Amino acid sequence: MKLVEWIAKAVTDDPRALRWFEEAGSDERIGRAFKELLAGYEIEPSTILKTTRMLESDEPPGRVEVKDIVFHSICAHHFLPFFGEVDLCYEPGDRILGLGKLPRLVDAFARRFQIQEDLVRDVAREMMESGHARGVRVRSRARHLCMCSRGPAKESAITHAEFSLGTLAAD
Amino acid sequence: MKLVEWIAKAVTDDPRALRWFEEAGSDERIGRAFKELLAGYEIEPSTILKTTRMLESDEPPGRVEVKDIVFHSICAHHFLPFFGEVDLCYEPGDRILGLGKLPRLVDAFARRFQIQEDLVRDVAREMMESGHARGVRVRSRARHLCMCSRGPAKESAITHAEFSLGTLAAD
Amino acid sequence: MKLVEWIAKAVTDDPRALRWFEEAGSDERIGRAFKELLAGYEIEPSTILKTTRMLESDEPPGRVEVKDIVFHSICAHHFLPFFGEVDLCYEPGDRILGLGKLPRLVDAFARRFQIQEDLVRDVAREMMESGHARGVRVRSRARHLCMCSRGPAKESAITHAEFSLGTLAAD
Amino acid sequence: MKLVEWIAKAVTDDPRALRWFEEAGSDERIGRAFKELLAGYEIEPSTILKTTRMLESDEPPGRVEVKDIVFHSICAHHFLPFFGEVDLCYEPGDRILGLGKLPRLVDAFARRFQIQEDLVRDVAREMMESGHARGVRVRSRARHLCMCSRGPAKESAITHAEFSLGTLAAD
Amino acid sequence: MKLVEWIAKAVTDDPRALRWFEEAGSDERIGRAFKELLAGYEIEPSTILKTTRMLESDEPPGRVEVKDIVFHSICAHHFLPFFGEVDLCYEPGDRILGLGKLPRLVDAFARRFQIQEDLVRDVAREMMESGHARGVRVRSRARHLCMCSRGPAKESAITHAEFSLGTLAAD
Amino acid sequence: MKLVEWIAKAVTDDPRALRWFEEAGSDERIGRAFKELLAGYEIEPSTILKTTRMLESDEPPGRVEVKDIVFHSICAHHFLPFFGEVDLCYEPGDRILGLGKLPRLVDAFARRFQIQEDLVRDVAREMMESGHARGVRVRSRARHLCMCSRGPAKESAITHAEFSLGTLAAD
Amino acid sequence: MKLVEWIAKAVTDDPRALRWFEEAGSDERIGRAFKELLAGYEIEPSTILKTTRMLESDEPPGRVEVKDIVFHSICAHHFLPFFGEVDLCYEPGDRILGLGKLPRLVDAFARRFQIQEDLVRDVAREMMESGHARGVRVRSRARHLCMCSRGPAKESAITHAEFSLGTLAAD
Amino acid sequence: MKLVEWIAKAVTDDPRALRWFEEAGSDERIGRAFKELLAGYEIEPSTILKTTRMLESDEPPGRVEVKDIVFHSICAHHFLPFFGEVDLCYEPGDRILGLGKLPRLVDAFARRFQIQEDLVRDVAREMMESGHARGVRVRSRARHLCMCSRGPAKESAITHAEFSLGTLAAD
Amino acid sequence: MKLVEWIAKAVTDDPRALRWFEEAGSDERIGRAFKELLAGYEIEPSTILKTTRMLESDEPPGRVEVKDIVFHSICAHHFLPFFGEVDLCYEPGDRILGLGKLPRLVDAFARRFQIQEDLVRDVAREMMESGHARGVRVRSRARHLCMCSRGPAKESAITHAEFSLGTLAAD
Amino acid sequence: MKLVEWIAKAVTDDPRALRWFEEAGSDERIGRAFKELLAGYEIEPSTILKTTRMLESDEPPGRVEVKDIVFHSICAHHFLPFFGEVDLCYEPGDRILGLGKLPRLVDAFARRFQIQEDLVRDVAREMMESGHARGVRVRSRARHLCMCSRGPAKESAITHAEFSLGTLAAD
Repeated sequence: MKLVEWIAKAVTDDPRALRWFEEAGSDERIGRAFKELLAGYEIEPSTILKTTRMLESDEPPGRVEVKDIVFHSICAHHFLPFFGEVDLCYEPGDRILGLGKLPRLVDAFARRFQIQEDLVRDVAREMMESGHARGVRVRSRARHLCMCSRGPAKESAITHAEFSLGTLAAD
Repeated sequence: MKLVEWIAKAVTDDPRALRWFEEAGSDERIGRAFKELLAGYEIEPSTILKTTRMLESDEPPGRVEVKDIVFHSICAHHFLPFFGEVDLCYEPGDRILGLGKLPRLVDAFARRFQIQEDLVRDVAREMMESGHARGVRVRSRARHLCMCSRGPAKESAITHAEFSLGTLAAD
Repeated sequence: MKLVEWIAKAVTDDPRALRWFEEAGSDERIGRAFKELLAGYEIEPSTILKTTRMLESDEPPGRVEVKDIVFHSICAHHFLPFFGEVDLCYEPGDRILGLGKLPRLVDAFARRFQIQEDLVRDVAREMMESGHARGVRVRSRARHLCMCSRGPAKESAITHAEFSLGTLAAD
Repeated sequence: MKLVEWIAKAVTDDPRALRWFEEAGSDERIGRAFKELLAGYEIEPSTILKTTRMLESDEPPGRVEVKDIVFHSICAHHFLPFFGEVDLCYEPGDRILGLGKLPRLVDAFARRFQIQEDLVRDVAREMMESGHARGVRVRSRARHLCMCSRGPAKESAITHAEFSLGTLAAD
Repeated sequence: MKLVEWIAKAVTDDPRALRWFEEAGSDERIGRAFKELLAGYEIEPSTILKTTRMLESDEPPGRVEVKDIVFHSICAHHFLPFFGEVDLCYEPGDRILGLGKLPRLVDAFARRFQIQEDLVRDVAREMMESGHARGVRVRSRARHLCMCSRGPAKESAITHAEFSLGTLAAD
Repeated sequence: MKLVEWIAKAVTDDPRALRWFEEAGSDERIGRAFKELLAGYEIEPSTILKTTRMLESDEPPGRVEVKDIVFHSICAHHFLPFFGEVDLCYEPGDRILGLGKLPRLVDAFARRFQIQEDLVRDVAREMMESGHARGVRVRSRARHLCMCSRGPAKESAITHAEFSLGTLAAD
Repeated sequence: MKLVEWIAKAVTDDPRALRWFEEAGSDERIGRAFKELLAGYEIEPSTILKTTRMLESDEPPGRVEVKDIVFHSICAHHFLPFFGEVDLCYEPGDRILGLGKLPRLVDAFARRFQIQEDLVRDVAREMMESGHARGVRVRSRARHLCMCSRGPAKESAITHAEFSLGTLAAD
Repeated sequence: MKLVEWIAKAVTDDPRALRWFEEAGSDERIGRAFKELLAGYEIEPSTILKTTRMLESDEPPGRVEVKDIVFHSICAHHFLPFFGEVDLCYEPGDRILGLGKLPRLVDAFARRFQIQEDLVRDVAREMMESGHARGVRVRSRARHLCMCSRGPAKESAITHAEFSLGTLAAD
Repeated sequence: MKLVEWIAKAVTDDPRALRWFEEAGSDERIGRAFKELLAGYEIEPSTILKTTRMLESDEPPGRVEVKDIVFHSICAHHFLPFFGEVDLCYEPGDRILGLGKLPRLVDAFARRFQIQEDLVRDVAREMMESGHARGVRVRSRARHLCMCSRGPAKESAITHAEFSLGTLAAD
Repeated sequence: MKLVEWIAKAVTDDPRALRWFEEAGSDERIGRAFKELLAGYEIEPSTILKTTRMLESDEPPGRVEVKDIVFHSICAHHFLPFFGEVDLCYEPGDRILGLGKLPRLVDAFARRFQIQEDLVRDVAREMMESGHARGVRVRSRARHLCMCSRGPAKESAITHAEFSLGTLAAD
């Protein structure tokens, strides 16, 4: 089966629309694009985080944050992208984590069919579990094309979802 | 009866003003514009919100906000538009609500004759009731043409009205 | 006749809408607001401009501009406000005009039922005629509530209309 | 046939991905979203533009621009949205066009499967033909999700496409 | 007596200065300008505020603020203008006040000979008394020409005066 | 004679207004403020500019500009301040002028009763004459309290006046 | 003795450097500049503050702040300028102080050889003592040429020093 | 051995890459650049801080901060630069420290192979020990080329690391 | 051979520096990072550009630009990164090129050892040759770590290099 | 001789001023600071520029600019710093110059006693001569402490000096 069949059945049978997807190679090209956008299913999040060094026994933990991690995801309800930024803050438990791995963790959960509220929850939990954090706070800002592209009052709306655990839960 | 009669009686009888509204089709065109601006009366707000998923039994609720929801409304006192943005924040009760429905809820209350203080109250109450939220905070910023267009000291004034309930009442 | 009759006939008969305009004093209050918004009909534009001083015989004229003159007007087609700013630039002819009169001239044409393209043309012509300018350029930026409040793709649209005459026509 | 079949065949067979689209009602919900995004096929662009008034015989035409017209479209090659703003400028021919119709014209061409270079060309041609313009310049800025969501160097890239005809072709 | 006499006695007897004020009509023109700037003495502030609606018996009051209310006043010590913005926030007592009246209240106190610290106090007290507010906070920002135009270190200085009463006193 | 007499006669006889100016020392304090604002009459502009060095015989002149020179002046028509910035650009003739003297030249003409169009002309002419410039361009931006503090449409208006001579006349 | 002798001994004996200071009048010109920069030694700070009015017996004090008071000072360690802004906030004790005197107080302490930490302390103490304040907070931001002009990592550094006393000590 | 050998073995043997490093003088030039970037190893941090003056016995300490201290460092894991700004705030203990030394302290730790979390910890500890501070807070913002230059979702990410001790630990 | 040997010989033998690179796996990790940064050598630029569609025979070409294409490169002289953005503008020849390919073309040339002036030249030539453009203009802005991290006066410097060919050469 | 003697003679004999410079080590510390600020005398500008590569025989030159090169200099007339940024643009003659050398060239001329108009001229000439440029344009923006710290109207003034030669002379 080809995408053009689904479009014709579920969306529109206007020939000016359908002709684009009747070309040879069309499904392959679109499939490649979506495979990249959904590459998170190939990654096991619990293996991403690496330890930079262990804290000394009485070392205050400090606080580490990576801000403005760009992500792209696909809304599980409308098959349309949503995208934005995540700010990922943690208070180290017994170890400092490799800074460069934090955006990878976000990416692993974002490149799936998602809803934004689950994305921040999933990242926060993984930071506590495989990252051994004392506390974590995950904030996200996004634009949803399923929302922005439909009807008045929604074009500029920015959605925020936030989830925190451990010592940062009370912030 | 036609709008031009009301204008002539209540506002001005200058023929340069009246000629615009004496044209055929004028009342129909204006009526269509106002019908769109007042379409909220056709919508039952309690049917808008949808559940995305139920929270797990011991799941912390996180926090969700849709910011910069543009709205347009008509001032119930002066028959002139006011417009601006709403920031709608809630702490989920037993369920995550469909993100795209929150701007629709604002729209349903805004597209009526309103006063800004009632708009935020009406939205907040609906979020608690049909949205089963633990807490809600509704902030709005607006420019009122009944205010901005009349006399000095008012041109740039921005009005803010805020209303919160439940766990977010104390924020 | 009262405005509520027109609303009931042309827009909506929802009693929640109509009750606002059935109150005593409602038409008077609304009439006052529109009278202010349409006060330009009371003003004869050709009497506004005043001479500050005549140019010396071989004095280069320089250039004068008043920027960001806020205006409010009412769209002659939809009975809804549009508003924005005018930048009014002129090259003096034989006289320097009183600076404070330029915003009044804009106001006299804006406080009428208007379309934006006519507003800049009317101001430019008056500057040439009663202001004896060598050249004039009138630029305007506006938001139209008849456009911004209706349907997607229009919320943030800014309309520009420009009209120039004389030595500034070629700018 | 259902969308889930295409996803399983062309993109991924991960059950965590597929379960979202196996729910009853899923295809209908997605179909509705795409129908809105592709509603332009239902509109005949040559019927959109309306005349506000004819120019007087020797009236200089002035210049009119609507800036920051938000649009959303779907990339005909990757079945992914692109969106941004159009600035639409024209020099009137024999008539002033209704300002509010210009964003509708953009919308009619954007809500189709498109490529950005064709979108500006199509709008410009229609302005010349059914709008009787002397000249037209259409500028667009967009973000393409098929580009932004894939690989480094592309996240923040903004694409510009511009097309002009008539007296504005040389600008 | 004429202003030019006072200038000659108290400020400067340079004929290039005095000639401006020896023209016929000069005092009348200046008098008109100052009358507008001091029009607040004609207004009884306690009559300005209007009730939009009474609160329901157990309705939480919400919070209302009008920000960036531009004002112009004249410094009672130096006979020179000061101007800026007021942010006026209140928590309703038993009633919602007409939003458009709040800038008028500021204007009534500003268009007098004033000092900035008294302006915010006067507005706050009136909101408590004739506005029946639970709490009020009045913040102002201003530039004083008596300060900005004299000597180094003062050009860019912005003065802030704030006064709050009732439930907002502790903010 | 005292200022209070003029106020009582020309502006208002409200005792709340007059009491401020009946205090002993009031006229002296106000006189001092205006003397500073009008100190330009004490300065002979042709003596201000100093030569830093003469140009070598075939040295290209380069271009020098001092931007954002703050000035305060008093409107000769309304006895109210106007203030803003001057950008003063010149192309040296046979000499480079002391940079620090250029703001002093502006100050010498601004601290008088002025109109903005004359201020830029006076500065430009002096630069050509005692500064031996090849060309000069003087741009000014200002806010006029006689304009900003009176009536709608004027609060935010910025007035621009520009005057250029010599090689910079064509810019 | 002349400055050029000190430069030759302590800094450089390059003749291209020394020639500037061997000109007649050089020391006088430089001396005048430094005298202005150090004029604070001529001022007795305790005489600057003036009372605008006494507080009524039970009047809440409100809060007053002058922000962005530009200052220039000379670093007592390196004989090089530092400059920036002071924000001076106080809570009145028994009296409201003349607003225009607060920048003068800053100026009196800044126009000396100073270190930034002492400048804020000196201003705060004077506000408590001769200003009879309940509390005072003095914040300063500065760029130090002794720091900014030397070596990497310092060019853009902004130094902040803050000192508070009385009721504002805990802010 | 030469760098080109390592590149050929560990990175790429493309001759277009290698030719750059086969030139004579290449290793010396690169070595000089890295020596500057790693000059911190030559500096003993405990000797940097100088005392400006001791506090008086009962003097409140005030608070001092140097913001936006630019630093450049090299990531110890990837041999690639990271760079950004440090904000260094301290509450004096018994002495005021020389302001200009604070950026030098940051520089001494930054010009080493580092990880960002250690950089802020090292600076904070040195401020407590050789600076005798009551409290210190070190915040840093950085871009890591090892992160920004590799793969999507990371280009714009800003990493923050913060460490505080003593009286500022609880901020 | 290992990188640590080169560091010890060419940069520093401080053991605190060397220990980082003596760890097992260090060279592999660094090699992987540089391989990504130099991946452009694996790509044949002439195969990147794809045709979206051919122009109609008399179709005006319009103009297409992709702005703010982020790139990362390595300075061929100092073995240190430089990075920034490219704006790539072209006027189509006989064909519209796939928009998403333009950033890939930049990437293919940037991920090499480069100098900024060659990068823009290489991209421009490829656009003319395999892209069949009528004209092309490539602008780049960059920060060079070899420059920014060394000595004063360079920290904030932004380098621009531009290269244009064909019909856009004269812009 | 010591600096304190000059201060006492030429500026002030206030003992609070003089005590700072009577301390042992004071002159040495100040001398070190000025030596760094005047280090340009030690550098021969004609040796700074290096060739990156020669242009191919028919290669279009492109254009190269380094913007925002921060500089610090000392005003030759007032012994007070001035500082700002230089934008240095050139069109290559027969060679591309090492990018990192351009800020060094600016630094070599800035770290002298200077006037801003000479600084841009000196840099431009050196670019033509030892840099073999076809054309060069040097723009500078600065704040002069001799100007900014003295009297009203000057605090925020920004001075611009520009000098261009060769093919860029006409820009």
